[in-house]
Amino acid sequence: MNELKLEDTIALLGSTPATLIALLRDLPEIWTLRNEGEGTWNAFEVIGHLIHGERTDWMPRARMILDFGETRTFEKFDRSGHQSEIEGKTMSQLLDEFARDRSENLARLRAMNLKKADLARRGRHPALGVVTLSQLLATWAAHDLTHLHQISRIMANQYREAVGPWNAYLGVMQCSGHSS
Amino acid sequence: MNELKLEDTIALLGSTPATLIALLRDLPEIWTLRNEGEGTWNAFEVIGHLIHGERTDWMPRARMILDFGETRTFEKFDRSGHQSEIEGKTMSQLLDEFARDRSENLARLRAMNLKKADLARRGRHPALGVVTLSQLLATWAAHDLTHLHQISRIMANQYREAVGPWNAYLGVMQCSGHSS
Repeated sequence: MNELKLEDTIALLGSTPATLIALLRDLPEIWTLRNEGEGTWNAFEVIGHLIHGERTDWMPRARMILDFGETRTFEKFDRSGHQSEIEGKTMSQLLDEFARDRSENLARLRAMNLKKADLARRGRHPALGVVTLSQLLATWAAHDLTHLHQISRIMANQYREAVGPWNAYLGVMQCSGHSS
Repeated sequence: MNELKLEDTIALLGSTPATLIALLRDLPEIWTLRNEGEGTWNAFEVIGHLIHGERTDWMPRARMILDFGETRTFEKFDRSGHQSEIEGKTMSQLLDEFARDRSENLARLRAMNLKKADLARRGRHPALGVVTLSQLLATWAAHDLTHLHQISRIMANQYREAVGPWNAYLGVMQCSGHSS
């Protein structure tokens, strides 16, 4: 990942809050508070998860790579961490929080003024082992996309019956790309 | 699908243009002009396909159900029809065209003032046979979602290598839900 690609990554990361606001802010609850069945998330919970990532995952790990390299292992990410982020809040509040957190994180990322050599620096993931800063930042962007992909699938699932025989034509209804 | 659900459908259909504008308007070409390999679409082509649907699929079929019921079969949808819609245009132009077409179609849909009995009316699809107006309108909304799902997958595919070992954790990289 060279500096040009870092700009591509930042462009995508910068567009996600407005995308989710346009998609979710004014929708009826059928689209935002229903999930894909027991043990799955609704769109509201996904936004909580994105907020939790902004606070505990991406930038803390980037900072750890720059400060400690492979000598310190990242904190394990808490996949239940969204629960405390969403409690008592509305979708609109969560979307605003996510937009603010993301904007602040991108300002911090730009202030790091990363060079090609920085992007090649290595850190240690608790399960995956050695990873680079470049891979971490690419994953931050791809993680936005995996959750946009998930939200569109959760929403489509609410119309699984309503579409009748068209179900067979709609790829989203056949998606098996669930994140682990 | 009762009248309440028709409002849910219209809410989603109304949000899609702004979602796609927020996601795609200002992104570098790596995200908008690359595809998933030979014979697949990039995000630019997907928007062209959505425009073609606005012009030839959803509302003409709804009109046909109301006017002719099962006695007339829908025109076959042209899955290459987007090519003439996109030629010589920029992403920004396509997004504006889609937003305008969608807005006009929703105004026409509201003007139909559909009642529960109308939504149960039946038409004839060239491959699927008998379908209802309710199913057609639900599919219009789910079709937006299948293409948002597809666009997020096309975009994530550009970082398949860049994310390194995180690939295994990202559901979007394992998605098999491709529309037919």
